[in-house]
Amino acid sequence: MITSTANGQVKHVVNLMNKAKYRRENREFVVEGIKMVLEAPEESVEKIFVAESFVQSHKSGLENIQWDSPKMETVSDNVFKQMSDTMTPQGIMAIVKMKESPLSEVVGQEKAFVMVCEDLQDPGNLGTIIRTGEGAGVSGIIMSKNTVDVYNPKTIRSTMGSIYRVPFLYTDNLQETIRQMKALGVTVYAAHLNGNNSYAKEDYSGKCAFLIGNEGNGLKSETTELADKLIKIPMEGSVESLNAAVSAAVLMYEVNRQRRG
Amino acid sequence: MITSTANGQVKHVVNLMNKAKYRRENREFVVEGIKMVLEAPEESVEKIFVAESFVQSHKSGLENIQWDSPKMETVSDNVFKQMSDTMTPQGIMAIVKMKESPLSEVVGQEKAFVMVCEDLQDPGNLGTIIRTGEGAGVSGIIMSKNTVDVYNPKTIRSTMGSIYRVPFLYTDNLQETIRQMKALGVTVYAAHLNGNNSYAKEDYSGKCAFLIGNEGNGLKSETTELADKLIKIPMEGSVESLNAAVSAAVLMYEVNRQRRG
Repeated sequence: MITSTANGQVKHVVNLMNKAKYRRENREFVVEGIKMVLEAPEESVEKIFVAESFVQSHKSGLENIQWDSPKMETVSDNVFKQMSDTMTPQGIMAIVKMKESPLSEVVGQEKAFVMVCEDLQDPGNLGTIIRTGEGAGVSGIIMSKNTVDVYNPKTIRSTMGSIYRVPFLYTDNLQETIRQMKALGVTVYAAHLNGNNSYAKEDYSGKCAFLIGNEGNGLKSETTELADKLIKIPMEGSVESLNAAVSAAVLMYEVNRQRRG
Repeated sequence: MITSTANGQVKHVVNLMNKAKYRRENREFVVEGIKMVLEAPEESVEKIFVAESFVQSHKSGLENIQWDSPKMETVSDNVFKQMSDTMTPQGIMAIVKMKESPLSEVVGQEKAFVMVCEDLQDPGNLGTIIRTGEGAGVSGIIMSKNTVDVYNPKTIRSTMGSIYRVPFLYTDNLQETIRQMKALGVTVYAAHLNGNNSYAKEDYSGKCAFLIGNEGNGLKSETTELADKLIKIPMEGSVESLNAAVSAAVLMYEVNRQRRG
């Protein structure tokens, strides 16, 4: 059992939790909680850490956990608390290998339905878009280089496991990636406050992608220019804009509604 | 100028920021930032606090602020930081009088469109529902007694000013309030994982209300039983549920879409 925070594995976890650069260098991230650990694809799991008291209280109950696995490491409760990102740790976390998808997988085999996030900054917004995206049936998610790190513990938490199942990629050149999608026959819609078409009047039965801009500044003009159409979500009252994850959800579920027929 | 955190007004603000009970007893709450202070209804504003450096940098620029008002109080930058709930304070905040609406106003004059929140716990979710609600054109919002305090600084921030404009009320007896709405001819829909009707197949042209449950536990069964219809938002993949604010947004914008025609 690991009983010291000076332990190398513990330091590795803490660094993975706190430093995006360290995560990128190691191509690993950390997930916490029973649900997130159990849903992780087995081949991607590098290591599982359980708190001493978690073993005592769950060893007989949780049969899905391979307690004898060489990947399993027990740590004292105090050390686990130091490793955890949450106020009330569940007592289980795992190191998981990063996996990004190629553009062909994000665009999908049949009906492309892609959310494109430009420089989103709020980890909760990004995580919620991934979660809602799985629910609405997106084929994948594309993020600009300056979008918040999808492997941030807060983002991972708010995906509720969808991070394992929704194909996604980061791109160094968002505009080029959008051009590549257009070449694949994808119609690109920009959600824009100056859009003159209501999102609900468009036909999303074909391949489609939606550009979602930064929370404060919206889409860059050079990105907006690549869109085939500017659409807007109508707003009553004095509302100037909607939350980014809410806008994305409204658009995604309109596609879902239309495609279900 | 106030230069000490021992000042009675400073203590009052700090208590209003941090204690829901103190807010209720005083029937006051605090809003922060230029936008939130300027959008507050003038008659509801009790006091405005500005940081010394805010006065220096904005006195000539911000003409909407009544700098000579007896309600205006300047505080030193250090004291303002102590009063603020944010990491990077803008330098302006106000004490605002609480105002709840009667049920008749929440239900609205013509077309009732009410969101009913039962025991929502996340301040950001509640604030986002109020903001999206204004955008989608709700007539008002009803909250159970155990819903998170709408005057919590985090909730207020995430409403982006909609808190001043969307009628709302707390009720001690949610079930009784739902019965009263039904007596007014409102059709009540429960968003429920066991719903067998897709939300998008219903007709929301008439008076309608939606019951939204707690993030972890959903709606109580005795509340669900009062609904005229259980509806669900279809989900692809392995998603078990959507975020509460996202679910509410999808429902609200479907009503908006149908009513715009």
